Amino acid sequence: MKTPAYDHLTATYQRLHRLGHLGAIAGWDQAANMPAKGNEARAAAIAELAALMHRMRTDPALGTEIERAEQENLDDVQRANLREIRRDWQRATALPDDLVQRREIATSRCEHAWRTQRPTGDWAGFLANFRPVLAIAREQAARLADASGLGRYEAMMDAYEPGMTTATVDRVFGEVRQWLPGLIQQVVARQAEQHRAEPLIDPVGPFDVERQRWLSEQVMRLLGFDFDAGRLDVSTHPFCGGVPEDVRMTTRYSTDNFLGSLMGTVHETGHGRYEQNLPRDWLGQPLAEARSMALHESQSLSFEMQIGGHPGFAALVSPLLREAFGEQPAFAPANLRRLLTRVKPGLIRVDADEVTYPAHIILRYEIERPLVEGEIEPEDIPALWDAKMMELLGLDTRGNFADGPMQDVHWPAGLIGYFPCYSLGAMFAAQWFGAIRRAVPDLDARLNAGDLAPALDWLKVNIWTQASRWTTDELAVRASGEPLNPAHFKAHLARRYLG
Amino acid sequence: MKTPAYDHLTATYQRLHRLGHLGAIAGWDQAANMPAKGNEARAAAIAELAALMHRMRTDPALGTEIERAEQENLDDVQRANLREIRRDWQRATALPDDLVQRREIATSRCEHAWRTQRPTGDWAGFLANFRPVLAIAREQAARLADASGLGRYEAMMDAYEPGMTTATVDRVFGEVRQWLPGLIQQVVARQAEQHRAEPLIDPVGPFDVERQRWLSEQVMRLLGFDFDAGRLDVSTHPFCGGVPEDVRMTTRYSTDNFLGSLMGTVHETGHGRYEQNLPRDWLGQPLAEARSMALHESQSLSFEMQIGGHPGFAALVSPLLREAFGEQPAFAPANLRRLLTRVKPGLIRVDADEVTYPAHIILRYEIERPLVEGEIEPEDIPALWDAKMMELLGLDTRGNFADGPMQDVHWPAGLIGYFPCYSLGAMFAAQWFGAIRRAVPDLDARLNAGDLAPALDWLKVNIWTQASRWTTDELAVRASGEPLNPAHFKAHLARRYLG
Repeated sequence: MKTPAYDHLTATYQRLHRLGHLGAIAGWDQAANMPAKGNEARAAAIAELAALMHRMRTDPALGTEIERAEQENLDDVQRANLREIRRDWQRATALPDDLVQRREIATSRCEHAWRTQRPTGDWAGFLANFRPVLAIAREQAARLADASGLGRYEAMMDAYEPGMTTATVDRVFGEVRQWLPGLIQQVVARQAEQHRAEPLIDPVGPFDVERQRWLSEQVMRLLGFDFDAGRLDVSTHPFCGGVPEDVRMTTRYSTDNFLGSLMGTVHETGHGRYEQNLPRDWLGQPLAEARSMALHESQSLSFEMQIGGHPGFAALVSPLLREAFGEQPAFAPANLRRLLTRVKPGLIRVDADEVTYPAHIILRYEIERPLVEGEIEPEDIPALWDAKMMELLGLDTRGNFADGPMQDVHWPAGLIGYFPCYSLGAMFAAQWFGAIRRAVPDLDARLNAGDLAPALDWLKVNIWTQASRWTTDELAVRASGEPLNPAHFKAHLARRYLG
Repeated sequence: MKTPAYDHLTATYQRLHRLGHLGAIAGWDQAANMPAKGNEARAAAIAELAALMHRMRTDPALGTEIERAEQENLDDVQRANLREIRRDWQRATALPDDLVQRREIATSRCEHAWRTQRPTGDWAGFLANFRPVLAIAREQAARLADASGLGRYEAMMDAYEPGMTTATVDRVFGEVRQWLPGLIQQVVARQAEQHRAEPLIDPVGPFDVERQRWLSEQVMRLLGFDFDAGRLDVSTHPFCGGVPEDVRMTTRYSTDNFLGSLMGTVHETGHGRYEQNLPRDWLGQPLAEARSMALHESQSLSFEMQIGGHPGFAALVSPLLREAFGEQPAFAPANLRRLLTRVKPGLIRVDADEVTYPAHIILRYEIERPLVEGEIEPEDIPALWDAKMMELLGLDTRGNFADGPMQDVHWPAGLIGYFPCYSLGAMFAAQWFGAIRRAVPDLDARLNAGDLAPALDWLKVNIWTQASRWTTDELAVRASGEPLNPAHFKAHLARRYLG
């Protein structure tokens, strides 16, 4: 059977994949290597490529080819790929070029100014740049909603989390909201009592950067990262970039504290292994891409939280810490494990532990959704922020803009609809480990013995190599028997922190 | 005055410059960073970009725009840019796509096999792959000659050295050929006598790689390299890559020998400063590109030979060697200078000193020119090689293919017509320093006092910032009062090695 229209589409996406490779490496290099004076030329080069790829992805001929390909005799895998191609084409063509350009200008300006406004908490200055960003985001949401039939916030979220509905997020976050503040109080009280009985011992620095690098690479190897198909380098803001065939992870080192960098690297290694294990047969096609941001986050959090907070991980890493930095009482497995599961409500999302993290996300969701839907205005944010921080975490944030609503890059960068993915990812991770425990009844004994293979193999088979073969709901059902169910996350936290 | 056709051309070349930026960084990364498993995807990505840029450069509409732009009211600078654009378009369109593809396949195969055939000196195996490479090179030469009116070898050389004629190369190399073997004998005898009187002291290793890196960076700073607009990294084959706004130099370190790496870095720094000082106002246009390969080599050899072999350089670097590796008798300025100007006929071109180097180039020119013009066949190479090595350098190379005609990557890679640029560059470098001595009569005293500024400033004003504003002859006349004149090279060698 000939499938000329489908073949033409896959050839176009193969070309996009190859050109995207150059943009990914140039972006990584910009963060990890590039000297200051290279920035203007680099930004222009990346923008030129992005414009070229945008023109390729919005070529009207592609729309016609998609219609034709729908009529061709495709197998199930091809049909799934066509579903993803259609989705990509619809999203690429939904926004007029002038809106994309206006968004680029407004978010660049807002994000650039935010970098100096945040330290001084200049909320008024921030609002002047954020209002146009929000106006464009509302316009974008309205257009995407019209084109897709989704709600406005839902349509924004769909860019990161295809198929996710606000009904589901409302239900899931609403449920978590009921028990989370109580759980946090219980855990904090319980840990305070434990620490009185047996004081927590902090590691004593300084920690040599070269030794930290060695440690990070050792731990990445334990977690199965393939250094023949990727690297670990340094950048100001750690990320996992590059391409599936050559994953470029970054971290940053502080001589005062190695644990933050190490667990950041463990987190990014989850992203990295997902990318390294995307199916090679489909590579270059939308089908071969990671399913969604929540699924991606479910992998980084499987590594950082599900594995990283397990007693088996502390036992595995403890001898490496001694080898890296010498003998310290803090490196005893039991103490290390308590360091890695310490719960402490705080102002900053990115520093939050796994118990308090969802409070930060629920708060942002409850603000950005009405914001983009026009129900509230930017002026309303501080009062809402203060009330919700008190309600969810018991913290007084009044007047603290820098560590309050100005702390994240997402809003100045126009990334509205992204925040829910972080906590949906944490919930998926707990759900995967529930499934792994059913499949491997002695999982905890295996992890305690330092054997990560059962967990990593399950993730490889059920998540990484599935890429975008299925919708998220289908993937969750195939992997774990049910769609997203936050009960697993609740059970995980209760067992780990109250068990 | 409106110049719509010219403006359209400059916009196209601006886009090519931006896209080329991504290819340059990806190519540098491939050599300096990329893990092994990334290679296939990287090669595909770079090839995709190259094909895309080739389509842009051969768009028939460009030919029409060039004709139209010729009729527009352009100033002198615009007209020079149009001259370079026309040249680029003519070269890009002279070869049919199928020839370019066949060449790519043949040279890839030959170069790949050569990497394993060279160590064993498998000449017969090499010939099997080299014959198709040569057949395609001859076809290419014939087509380029037809399109340009140049001779066949000349047309090949024109890719690297625009405007250079075989008449000039014949005249210049013919002249050098007369006096070079005699000079080499004289210098070798003289140095042997000096070494008997006062033995040369070799540095004693091992030399720590981190200390070597520090040393290289210090010397690059002395030579004016801007580390805010470039980097030094490590690769198997050192090169100067990246883009003018962000120059990526590489080197390699051996713990046995630091001088080779250091002087290689000095050489590449000459290329690097040329690139870093190309005129910013024209950047993105062909006018702003380095003039030619010989001009580029004239800069790397100005640094490595003209400056690096000067007593002032040994005096400047001597304290840095002590700081890097501790006190050693070999690091005394007088001994160091003798190490840096030691002359020794040898089999390998890339290891040759500045006195014997032209012999290697003349030999290759006298073989590759009749080869591409069909006057000799590949089977004839070994006998010619042996005869010329004996005649020029007094060395017996019979039966040694690995360190004989198989030693260079140029022939397996199809880079025929490139070799002359190396020695033309050495001659231009001597000519520039002749001009600098006339402009700065106390140049040697300044260099001996460690002041490199007069030499570097002259090169910046007269060569680097001129880019492709003038033809090579015009540039040479403006800079030094005459076109290429090998008398300066002869005078330089006589003064340095017999003075």
